[in-house]
Amino acid sequence: MLPLLAVLASAEAATPPSSNGIDYPTGWQEWALIAVSHRTDNGTLRAILGNDTAVKAARAGQTNPWPDGTVLAKAVWKGAGLENWSSAVAPKAFVHAEFMIKDSVRFAETYGWGWARWLGETQAPFADGPQVCISCHTPVRGRDWVFTDPAPFPH
Amino acid sequence: MLPLLAVLASAEAATPPSSNGIDYPTGWQEWALIAVSHRTDNGTLRAILGNDTAVKAARAGQTNPWPDGTVLAKAVWKGAGLENWSSAVAPKAFVHAEFMIKDSVRFAETYGWGWARWLGETQAPFADGPQVCISCHTPVRGRDWVFTDPAPFPH
Repeated sequence: MLPLLAVLASAEAATPPSSNGIDYPTGWQEWALIAVSHRTDNGTLRAILGNDTAVKAARAGQTNPWPDGTVLAKAVWKGAGLENWSSAVAPKAFVHAEFMIKDSVRFAETYGWGWARWLGETQAPFADGPQVCISCHTPVRGRDWVFTDPAPFPH
Repeated sequence: MLPLLAVLASAEAATPPSSNGIDYPTGWQEWALIAVSHRTDNGTLRAILGNDTAVKAARAGQTNPWPDGTVLAKAVWKGAGLENWSSAVAPKAFVHAEFMIKDSVRFAETYGWGWARWLGETQAPFADGPQVCISCHTPVRGRDWVFTDPAPFPH
């Protein structure tokens, strides 16, 4: 039995530990796109992905508030010009993945959202608590705490 | 029967006509992400999405050549700073969707790729032929004609 247990233990270890008490949202890498952004102040590129509930709300323009069950994933990379097109800034090293998880009951004390972050390629959990996230998002408290405008898509 | 026929005609009309002889790849708006970019020379933001074959190849780093069956979709938006974070350039008006479709037999005469583009929110087909696309992609002919470096994702 030991080899099988070793395999199981290894598979379990591949899921990163929780961040701010929130489980790692597995599979987010294949979620559909809600928006992109380029933070020119710190040279990072971002993709904002969403689970099915989030994408449906984004496409329908029903995002203030976002519905319970929404999970927003923001993937962040260092940006640099492409080798063959230097004015096209594109993703290089992976910086972190940030999540906002809407559950107006579970997260009532943090404005209806769970806030989590996993760092780098190894996805080490951020564990300093949600206030670090919330303080930065305070300017958009009137937009259900979300900076992102969903990108328009043709139907 | 007329009302039913009218509904069917309306549904059919919703799929844009072909571009350069290529059918519209329905459902691309929900495909997974391969990369993003910000073209600072013309102020546009881009998301490069892929069908399942493309995403699997991108994640595995097997992209020179991309496998037959690959479809790459590039969505392009005008970029502008967010209302609440002016240094974060984010998508505004939708410009166009561009596609590269790998089929080394069908598209043997255009380097193994079909090249198509649909313009604006209405997705009006571009019909001036693939040479317009190919001429711009010539600098990356040694990378299977693709500028995009797939973004690294944590596993």
